Amino acid sequence: MINTVVFDAYGTLFDVNSVSRVCEKLYPGNGKIISRVWRQKQLEYTWLRSLMGRYIDFEQVNRDALRFTLNQLGKNYTNAIIDTLLDSYLTLPSYPEVESTLKLLTSLRRMILSDGTEKMLQTMVRNAKLELYFDQILSVDRVQVYKPDPRAYEFALTAANVPKEDILFVSSNGWDIAGSKSFGFNVAWVNRVEKPMEELGERPDFIVSNLTELIQIIN
Amino acid sequence: MINTVVFDAYGTLFDVNSVSRVCEKLYPGNGKIISRVWRQKQLEYTWLRSLMGRYIDFEQVNRDALRFTLNQLGKNYTNAIIDTLLDSYLTLPSYPEVESTLKLLTSLRRMILSDGTEKMLQTMVRNAKLELYFDQILSVDRVQVYKPDPRAYEFALTAANVPKEDILFVSSNGWDIAGSKSFGFNVAWVNRVEKPMEELGERPDFIVSNLTELIQIIN
Repeated sequence: MINTVVFDAYGTLFDVNSVSRVCEKLYPGNGKIISRVWRQKQLEYTWLRSLMGRYIDFEQVNRDALRFTLNQLGKNYTNAIIDTLLDSYLTLPSYPEVESTLKLLTSLRRMILSDGTEKMLQTMVRNAKLELYFDQILSVDRVQVYKPDPRAYEFALTAANVPKEDILFVSSNGWDIAGSKSFGFNVAWVNRVEKPMEELGERPDFIVSNLTELIQIIN
Repeated sequence: MINTVVFDAYGTLFDVNSVSRVCEKLYPGNGKIISRVWRQKQLEYTWLRSLMGRYIDFEQVNRDALRFTLNQLGKNYTNAIIDTLLDSYLTLPSYPEVESTLKLLTSLRRMILSDGTEKMLQTMVRNAKLELYFDQILSVDRVQVYKPDPRAYEFALTAANVPKEDILFVSSNGWDIAGSKSFGFNVAWVNRVEKPMEELGERPDFIVSNLTELIQIIN
């Protein structure tokens, strides 16, 4: 019986692709490629630093990933441009169905487990006017290692303080699905854009095309 | 005083981009994109599986990465096609200056440390007629974790059985440079195509545009 839902944040509740509009304003014609490479590099750096045992927080990882991205794409930048682009991660819009779904889940405990720092996550949730809907907002910063290291999921389990079987972990990121399933959570993959499944030896328990479909799974 | 050179294999001694020609024959017009996504996914899977604590060997990772790549790009395939593409990783050509450089380094111990399995590496080295030039060919398969986890570099250090300072680690992969430098090796980055440096908090000791330039560093 599911009594706790743990959501990933970036790409699951909040639309990271929206960053492309800010990129496009600053670099006309290049908004999509910049936001795509930046997101990819951001993830790579969380994985590589975790593997190297060289954790730095997500604010710094995000800045490093952005600088690499602009260097690689041959774009000039100033510190002010970097700051403007980084700030766009604090005002990511939530997906259209997020608030209505969260409203229907008020009888359950609702949590976030994210790579973002507590400050980034709290600011983003507040900017999206969703702060009333979460019982706990957890940052991997507390355990100093990024998903999909099992210690990140263990942190959420400990914070939830319920048996593993009571938890549904929800993410749109295929690698996060593999990691959370490998850890032993019940897992729902939000596959909004018909991506193929990652070939990492794990399958989610549920696949939905948006968060609204979670309601049926839980009931 | 450097007396041991440890080379990365894929991208450093052997040209992974050559796979695009085999991909192009099977999927006309798509050779470059397939080989690029495949290589990226192959690396991602080594990092993700290492983080998850779910190691499988590089032959299997490479197969999984290829299947994901073809699924993502919407390409049909048979097992025979998969096998043909995987086989192309056993006949990667070495870069033009590899043999002449290795010949000039015969007074030093020369090793390979690679994510590939021993079988893959030995076949590839033999196919390129380079088997006489290496004292040891090391696969991370022995330690069941991929670079840039420090245990992979530690394995090479133990096998070399010389002080860390006596070793020069050579790679064209920016993430491998960060990992090996973070581990504490002397590091040379072979930057053949003027890539920007990865923003992972580490800088190589030397940057060369091809392997021939290593000779001066070592002498």
